Amino acid sequence: TYDRFTLILNLTYNFLFPQKLKDWVAIENDSNDPSKRQQLINMMHSAGESIKKLGGTVEMVDLGTQKLCNEQNISLPPVILANIGKDPTKLTVCFYGHLDVQPAKIEDGWSNDPYILTEKNGNLYGRGTSDDKGQILAVLNAVEALQRHELPVNVKFLLEGMEEVGSTGLPTLVEQRNSTFFSDVDYIVVTDTSWLSNKPGITYGTRGNCYFLIEVECSKQDLHSGAFGGIVHEAMSDLIFLLDTLVNSSGHIQIPGIYEAVSPLTDQEKKLYEETEYDLDGIKAKYGIDRFIYKTKEELLIRRSRYPSLSIHGIEGAFSEPGTKTVIPARVIGKFSVRLVPNMEPSVVKKQVTDSLNEKFAERNSPNRVKITSEYGSKPWLSGTSDPQYLAAKKAIKRVFGVDADMIHVGGTLPIASHFQEVTGKSIMLLGIGGPDDAAHGQDEKISRINFIEGIKLYAAFLQELASL
Amino acid sequence: TYDRFTLILNLTYNFLFPQKLKDWVAIENDSNDPSKRQQLINMMHSAGESIKKLGGTVEMVDLGTQKLCNEQNISLPPVILANIGKDPTKLTVCFYGHLDVQPAKIEDGWSNDPYILTEKNGNLYGRGTSDDKGQILAVLNAVEALQRHELPVNVKFLLEGMEEVGSTGLPTLVEQRNSTFFSDVDYIVVTDTSWLSNKPGITYGTRGNCYFLIEVECSKQDLHSGAFGGIVHEAMSDLIFLLDTLVNSSGHIQIPGIYEAVSPLTDQEKKLYEETEYDLDGIKAKYGIDRFIYKTKEELLIRRSRYPSLSIHGIEGAFSEPGTKTVIPARVIGKFSVRLVPNMEPSVVKKQVTDSLNEKFAERNSPNRVKITSEYGSKPWLSGTSDPQYLAAKKAIKRVFGVDADMIHVGGTLPIASHFQEVTGKSIMLLGIGGPDDAAHGQDEKISRINFIEGIKLYAAFLQELASL
Repeated sequence: TYDRFTLILNLTYNFLFPQKLKDWVAIENDSNDPSKRQQLINMMHSAGESIKKLGGTVEMVDLGTQKLCNEQNISLPPVILANIGKDPTKLTVCFYGHLDVQPAKIEDGWSNDPYILTEKNGNLYGRGTSDDKGQILAVLNAVEALQRHELPVNVKFLLEGMEEVGSTGLPTLVEQRNSTFFSDVDYIVVTDTSWLSNKPGITYGTRGNCYFLIEVECSKQDLHSGAFGGIVHEAMSDLIFLLDTLVNSSGHIQIPGIYEAVSPLTDQEKKLYEETEYDLDGIKAKYGIDRFIYKTKEELLIRRSRYPSLSIHGIEGAFSEPGTKTVIPARVIGKFSVRLVPNMEPSVVKKQVTDSLNEKFAERNSPNRVKITSEYGSKPWLSGTSDPQYLAAKKAIKRVFGVDADMIHVGGTLPIASHFQEVTGKSIMLLGIGGPDDAAHGQDEKISRINFIEGIKLYAAFLQELASL
Repeated sequence: TYDRFTLILNLTYNFLFPQKLKDWVAIENDSNDPSKRQQLINMMHSAGESIKKLGGTVEMVDLGTQKLCNEQNISLPPVILANIGKDPTKLTVCFYGHLDVQPAKIEDGWSNDPYILTEKNGNLYGRGTSDDKGQILAVLNAVEALQRHELPVNVKFLLEGMEEVGSTGLPTLVEQRNSTFFSDVDYIVVTDTSWLSNKPGITYGTRGNCYFLIEVECSKQDLHSGAFGGIVHEAMSDLIFLLDTLVNSSGHIQIPGIYEAVSPLTDQEKKLYEETEYDLDGIKAKYGIDRFIYKTKEELLIRRSRYPSLSIHGIEGAFSEPGTKTVIPARVIGKFSVRLVPNMEPSVVKKQVTDSLNEKFAERNSPNRVKITSEYGSKPWLSGTSDPQYLAAKKAIKRVFGVDADMIHVGGTLPIASHFQEVTGKSIMLLGIGGPDDAAHGQDEKISRINFIEGIKLYAAFLQELASL
């Protein structure tokens, strides 16, 4: 039966599938940008229709509104709860994914319009191709292909539209539907992940994340640096000072106590890192990185997934355009985030970061107004790797790609994974089809055509293997 | 004769003049923004036509092209060299001003569209109303009013369109035309200045300025902070570190040797600062500044004009929009400037700043690519205050406003003033009509209607007083 649907896939869908991805990529549904909210809502409805076409039952769950910082209320995108098949003799697998995307503008340095799917050298470029529209579409395509023979399991979908800004409203919904929607679910598969190398991988852990804003205000309006330079305490120099207290040149976080909760690495974990593929030189060349902070593959893998990190993302309110402007910005907001690992608690990290910054600022004796806020905090997640769905995924990878699966602990964050585990108690697995160089949050995000097409086969094979275990 | 044109002005022009200012403000000619270049060129031609309507002879000087950082060449705006009147028995006064403006977008926090002149509570709001379109227009209006009786001096104009980005090409032009256009000029009056309080003032000195860019690159494209956080030397933390070495919380510049060239303050200078009006509490309330770095009026005046200062303006290439984005920016450019005072030399300051940053960066042992460049460097300027044109301006202020003039040393920069002095050897004076709270480079830039109308009278009275000395 595998060979039969492989044949159908190769002949029929190799050309059809990317067309649907093109339609989805064309929807500019950045969840960060309130002006794109209607497109985000449209995207959710379009995905709901796609599931209905496969014979699914779809509920569009209204999560109410979101209050913006200007006090305006805008609608949250609906969440999709859907099922295809309700055979009580079969296992039920629930796929989770998100349809919103990160910000993208051609001026950021994209080679092509990020919202026009562009094929080049075997890659499909566009915002969301890999993270996560393309991967959800691959699951839908796999279901469609299996249906031509027989869908070996019942499939459920939980698809959201606010993942890139912290899955607003979703944790509560999972709790509310734990005894209904999730009651007959045997396994939860998260599509929102990628491989660490060109070798297909299964992800068993993610880091958590706390996002912070430091707002400093020195005046009600921007000042001329000629007229006020030298006599006012400038908001920018206070902010630069505060940001410079966060992390040293070796990436070591300077917040007192922050490493205390990090749980010791086990021998079993060490072994998994040793077995994982990670092409140091390839990644350095691809991204133009001269030197990593650590030298060996194992150290790098451990540091990027099993230790916390702090990155400074940018500053809002200062002069950020090309050219020169001699302004003293009135109000600036520094943005950074801390990735968390077991057993760091977001609430503790928030307190440690806020206390440290407040203490440093007090030493500075500046009259400026400072406000430290945290946008969201999500826990790290780490799973056992011998559950049946992990075995089925390994078999499927071997069958479709002919290689042993990489077992991956990613450095990114998927707050919903740890939440699924805590609330439902089900087995959680991350099975993605994106490559290591897909630039999920960067310019020229892509998925390779091979990953996309073979990925569809992988999801189909996984469901077959799981049913026949 | 003064009363006669005063009457004409009050009756006829109080309503007419702001209309012309409205037309000029509507031209979005930010010289920083290459996409606005055609509007900038249009602005120059429109001003040329206005001078021709007053019977002037106008030369539009082509300064060639400007190479952008992307290697593209775009046209520089022409410079206007014009004269109205050529009577060898009269004195000749040359007015310098600029018609380009600073960047302005309503999203920056303007109450109204910055390019639509908006009158509210006696103020005329819009980009360029004060800096410097409004002030040039006031001189043209003064000439027009005087012509109804008799123009008492020959008037020349040197008007440029690249002042806000460092007067590209102008210094060379001044040198080239020194023995022709400038040969019969007796006095040079710069309009590009404002009063320090509500009391009308004459400016006898400005600070210089060196603008610096620190570019740090850690990769060829932005990275995901989940996948790379903790293993790459991030460009942003290197940049934040470098920016934090520049100035301390008291505004003291941390560049070794930078204060060495500052010339000692004379007793005469101290006296001028003591006599100058500066409404500390009013300015604090107006701009929402809680506390200045210095306490007394004299200290503040000295620090804002007679000592160097360093301001950090912003960062290009990092995440600068509202919302959250978990990016590790690949290439970031920090921007700051140093205001210079006698006898600091731009070339020396450039070396001191570059050496200090390079030394600090070397200590950091980062593999990232760093490039420190300086966009422009302009000298400070300080003039004697007993030249005839200073006496005429003082008399004119007394006549129009009934008060003694403030003698002002501004903290801003007017590179062309020191250049005029060096090249032509003529007497230079800054006579503006803008108020202290006009927000020249900030949001809601304005000129008050009273300053604009009485300012026209001031320029007219100044020319009359100068002719009758």
